[in-house]
Amino acid sequence: MRSEFEFIRNIKKKHGLKRVGDDCAVLPKDSNKDLVVTADMLVGDIDFRLEWTTPEMLGHKALAVSLSDVAAMGGSAKWAMLSIAVPVPLWRGKFIDRFYKGWMQLARKARVELVGGDVSRSHGRLVVDSIVIGEVGKGRAVLRSGASAGDSIFVTGTLGGAAAGLKLLRSGERHAKASGKIKRLISRQLRPEPRIAVGQHLGRRQIATAMIDISDGLASDLHHICEASRVGARIDLERVPFDGDLADWTDRQTLALSGGEDFELLFTSAREKLSGVQVQPVTRIGEITGKRGVVELITAKGVAELPPTGYRHF
Amino acid sequence: MRSEFEFIRNIKKKHGLKRVGDDCAVLPKDSNKDLVVTADMLVGDIDFRLEWTTPEMLGHKALAVSLSDVAAMGGSAKWAMLSIAVPVPLWRGKFIDRFYKGWMQLARKARVELVGGDVSRSHGRLVVDSIVIGEVGKGRAVLRSGASAGDSIFVTGTLGGAAAGLKLLRSGERHAKASGKIKRLISRQLRPEPRIAVGQHLGRRQIATAMIDISDGLASDLHHICEASRVGARIDLERVPFDGDLADWTDRQTLALSGGEDFELLFTSAREKLSGVQVQPVTRIGEITGKRGVVELITAKGVAELPPTGYRHF
Repeated sequence: MRSEFEFIRNIKKKHGLKRVGDDCAVLPKDSNKDLVVTADMLVGDIDFRLEWTTPEMLGHKALAVSLSDVAAMGGSAKWAMLSIAVPVPLWRGKFIDRFYKGWMQLARKARVELVGGDVSRSHGRLVVDSIVIGEVGKGRAVLRSGASAGDSIFVTGTLGGAAAGLKLLRSGERHAKASGKIKRLISRQLRPEPRIAVGQHLGRRQIATAMIDISDGLASDLHHICEASRVGARIDLERVPFDGDLADWTDRQTLALSGGEDFELLFTSAREKLSGVQVQPVTRIGEITGKRGVVELITAKGVAELPPTGYRHF
Repeated sequence: MRSEFEFIRNIKKKHGLKRVGDDCAVLPKDSNKDLVVTADMLVGDIDFRLEWTTPEMLGHKALAVSLSDVAAMGGSAKWAMLSIAVPVPLWRGKFIDRFYKGWMQLARKARVELVGGDVSRSHGRLVVDSIVIGEVGKGRAVLRSGASAGDSIFVTGTLGGAAAGLKLLRSGERHAKASGKIKRLISRQLRPEPRIAVGQHLGRRQIATAMIDISDGLASDLHHICEASRVGARIDLERVPFDGDLADWTDRQTLALSGGEDFELLFTSAREKLSGVQVQPVTRIGEITGKRGVVELITAKGVAELPPTGYRHF
């Protein structure tokens, strides 16, 4: 069965769609600005489980994943639309009001205005489509395709926490009943914080040559950058910043490399050291190489090829 | 149970959302243009049935409903995004390719470029969210709120066909096996033609003072204009242009007034007669009155109040 990545590549090629394939599409706005637009669909029992989350956290996440896409272009989110297919039992109760409460709380913080969307009934699961429109300086959108051999590879924050949170939820842990490390890890899965300020900073200062947000997993998303930029990459496992709450987890490497949904920013830069990115810790984890399509992982045992493992819908 | 209209009114009021509530949201683009943006969600077994349609017709309709919203603002569609949650059996087969084929065919005709979207798996029904971004002259978007007492009320094309098509499908008729009138009526339901050229014309020439597309039904959508414009309306049943294929249908009045999904344009104008709108037949069906919130229907029996009957999700 073809993956969704193959499908999108095919349709892009077949119809000559030049703007498809990055975190956002870039559209001309005026003489100083471009628009960046993104849509992210969250489907019940695929992308979330109602019994694991709260309506407020789900509302937060629906907006967060799209704000993360705008940040990954170096853009500033301005407007949003929300389309939602709602099963009748959820419509009757307080779910929808609580969902919008969580959505609005993040929207206010991110200074995003809700301008439209759609409300439909659903016989099946809850489905949410989150659309965000942002702005970026003319010609300054940070694409996946701008990395060159020799660029350094950086990542914001820490990795693996969201995947660990998902594992904990699957094993029966619940946010409401958990505390300490367990609760924090579950929060990373259910209520991710998009890296808005650092994304804008990297775009505005033209520090990043290529950027993507880590939604599928470090390995998969680094492959996306390599594919778009026609380069390779080498990362050093020792430098990958694991979530501090994963110190006791023996599978923290797998979680960090293939887990996904951390919504940190993965970017490349011609600079080896970054100063002034004080809004968020940023770690240099490797460098771009000329070995097109090959991502190498340096471990204590040597250098191995890292396949594009990560979440796929199909 | 509150309707989706009440829900949207409440959330608009509560959060001071000024741009919510028209066919599209109007956003500033540059010194000459505004953007108009819309999102429409189509949910399996609510908004369509896979056993009634073809993937191509569904792809066409998904784009058509959003193009109709842009036309109802007097705008020109430019870019689109498509988010789609797909059950695995549909993904395995040819459904998705055929769906995009139908979508692309209309997109080419309407000169709309696919710039993004999302592909997700679904455990339940197929869900499609259709997002279209268009342009309109600065300050020239035709809102629902611009009608004044004394304005004439016009409608493009003919009404009732789409609702008759739905009735035929429910009674067991199928597009593939039907012919003549039956096939044409079913086509109006499954493959609506958005009034792109006439919408642009009415906006550009500043002919329309208020406009909406008929998605919920003439009665319901005219109430939307009256509510937004704080006026009333009086329409003459004899002048309502029924679909020519409904000549033998005894319930054609109900179908035309409350059926919905015709995707014709309903608009008001200070002019009593329109010349030069040759792209589409346009019929004057009544006039705007000062009786706020009241829609009156003139029939052979006299004048009666027309309630806002039409499709509701909740």
